[in-house]
Amino acid sequence: MTADEAFQDRYPDDVAHCYGCGRLNSEGLRVRSFWNGEQTIARLTPDRKYTAIPGYVYGGLIASFIDCHGTGTGAAVLARRDGTDELPRCVTASLHVDYRKPTPMGVELLAHGTVVEVTDRKVVTDITVKADDVTVATGQVVAVRMPENLVR
Amino acid sequence: MTADEAFQDRYPDDVAHCYGCGRLNSEGLRVRSFWNGEQTIARLTPDRKYTAIPGYVYGGLIASFIDCHGTGTGAAVLARRDGTDELPRCVTASLHVDYRKPTPMGVELLAHGTVVEVTDRKVVTDITVKADDVTVATGQVVAVRMPENLVR
Repeated sequence: MTADEAFQDRYPDDVAHCYGCGRLNSEGLRVRSFWNGEQTIARLTPDRKYTAIPGYVYGGLIASFIDCHGTGTGAAVLARRDGTDELPRCVTASLHVDYRKPTPMGVELLAHGTVVEVTDRKVVTDITVKADDVTVATGQVVAVRMPENLVR
Repeated sequence: MTADEAFQDRYPDDVAHCYGCGRLNSEGLRVRSFWNGEQTIARLTPDRKYTAIPGYVYGGLIASFIDCHGTGTGAAVLARRDGTDELPRCVTASLHVDYRKPTPMGVELLAHGTVVEVTDRKVVTDITVKADDVTVATGQVVAVRMPENLVR
């Protein structure tokens, strides 16, 4: 894995269409996640259409950012545990978001992930989202290995 | 309030641009919520771009649907409590989603809201999302009155 390769770059093609993080979804957010020491990091500057109140980012975008960074982190952790290069695709079992401050539009958002629990099939990640170094949201994602029968 | 008027139709114009539920955001989801007895209901058939794994809806869309139906429900409850016709705009304090089943694409989703706590400034709503009568997600939204200084 090279330094400029995101976790989501290593999803198999047939599961790389997610609106949040699929490299093959040209209309989506294309969230890209990376190791940052033992933490994980992702950056996103939301398009202006993702407005809440004018001047602020809507909560669903923040939830999507946390969700996809959490499943990406989960997949990277499981790949490392499995000793594989291609990432297993994970799905979200649960998502929690606490909105701490209004998130300003037009600013790059940083998501920092901290893995708090790992099993053979589950990874729990705490995520903090910052804008201009201010924490605007915190959350937790429980990601689980995607059941193989899900791919059609 | 007429039967075909959604909660979101009564948001003031300057706070009706939310990507999830703003009637003035032409690119957004335009979630529309209604009373259904003492419960609330919203319907949404996601566009195919909101894919997760092909054939299924991505988690961020479900989170956005629950979020905006929850803040809409909160606003309607507070308006009824206040005895006002125009709805106060609410923002999300916290959002929780449990993903119970993969959500099939191409099916109308129904969100049912049940209000579980109300104060002068806060409304907590439990929400169930069904596809083809199967519960695909459950969640909870804590909605609070928007601080007045948020509108620019």
